[in-house]
Amino acid sequence: MTAYDNDNIFAKIMRGELPCEKVFENKKTLVIMDIMPRCDGHVLVIPKKPSRNILDIKQKDAAAVIKTARKMAKTVLKAFGADGVTIQQFNEPAGGQVVFHTHVHIIPRMDGVRMGPPASEMADADVLKANADKIRAVLAKK
Amino acid sequence: MTAYDNDNIFAKIMRGELPCEKVFENKKTLVIMDIMPRCDGHVLVIPKKPSRNILDIKQKDAAAVIKTARKMAKTVLKAFGADGVTIQQFNEPAGGQVVFHTHVHIIPRMDGVRMGPPASEMADADVLKANADKIRAVLAKK
Repeated sequence: MTAYDNDNIFAKIMRGELPCEKVFENKKTLVIMDIMPRCDGHVLVIPKKPSRNILDIKQKDAAAVIKTARKMAKTVLKAFGADGVTIQQFNEPAGGQVVFHTHVHIIPRMDGVRMGPPASEMADADVLKANADKIRAVLAKK
Repeated sequence: MTAYDNDNIFAKIMRGELPCEKVFENKKTLVIMDIMPRCDGHVLVIPKKPSRNILDIKQKDAAAVIKTARKMAKTVLKAFGADGVTIQQFNEPAGGQVVFHTHVHIIPRMDGVRMGPPASEMADADVLKANADKIRAVLAKK
């Protein structure tokens, strides 16, 4: 497997070198809005420790990611009045991975509404912020 | 959320009431071949404890699932000489869920080969067994 590249977009976001629409953070994980959402409210759970994907992530980081993913699945369901949640995690280009720092896609789903194609269209910044605010509002109530 | 239904297909498999092509088992998880694979070597990681999906699974069961998922991602990559791995986990019908016991899809991917549609075509039993044997062979070497 290719080595971890410290200049990937998520590493830069975590170093504050690139902006993001952050909705949640704890000791081991960060949750941001996907800037190319497949549905409204599409977020990414990112472990803070460097790993390329599931092939090299350590169990303690993976467990922290799934703990945050559980929390965020319930949160986006509530924030968007969604009917379900689709979770995806891509490994290596053949597996669909585009940014080479481990991340899990949490996508709220509505009955009868298809997901858009992956990584295709940049969201409007105001729409992204409004959706992030809906998620933050649910998290603030807990 | 709808309550856990003890008569779902995976509960029946775990009680031995339905057959499966099992490739791995430990205290908390079971791994079986998906009988409607989206690519050759598509397996399902299933926690033994009852839960409907990510919305009600307990953290210790989720952590066990991700531990087995990490192991199986590396295993199917090796068993099929794959280039990547796609991981999916569906919650509620709108999220793509068909069987209502938590499970994670681990799908080995080849460069340039698209996944087939979900839950669409039943695999030939002999092909499924041959693919399971490839996975068991890699696991046996460890």
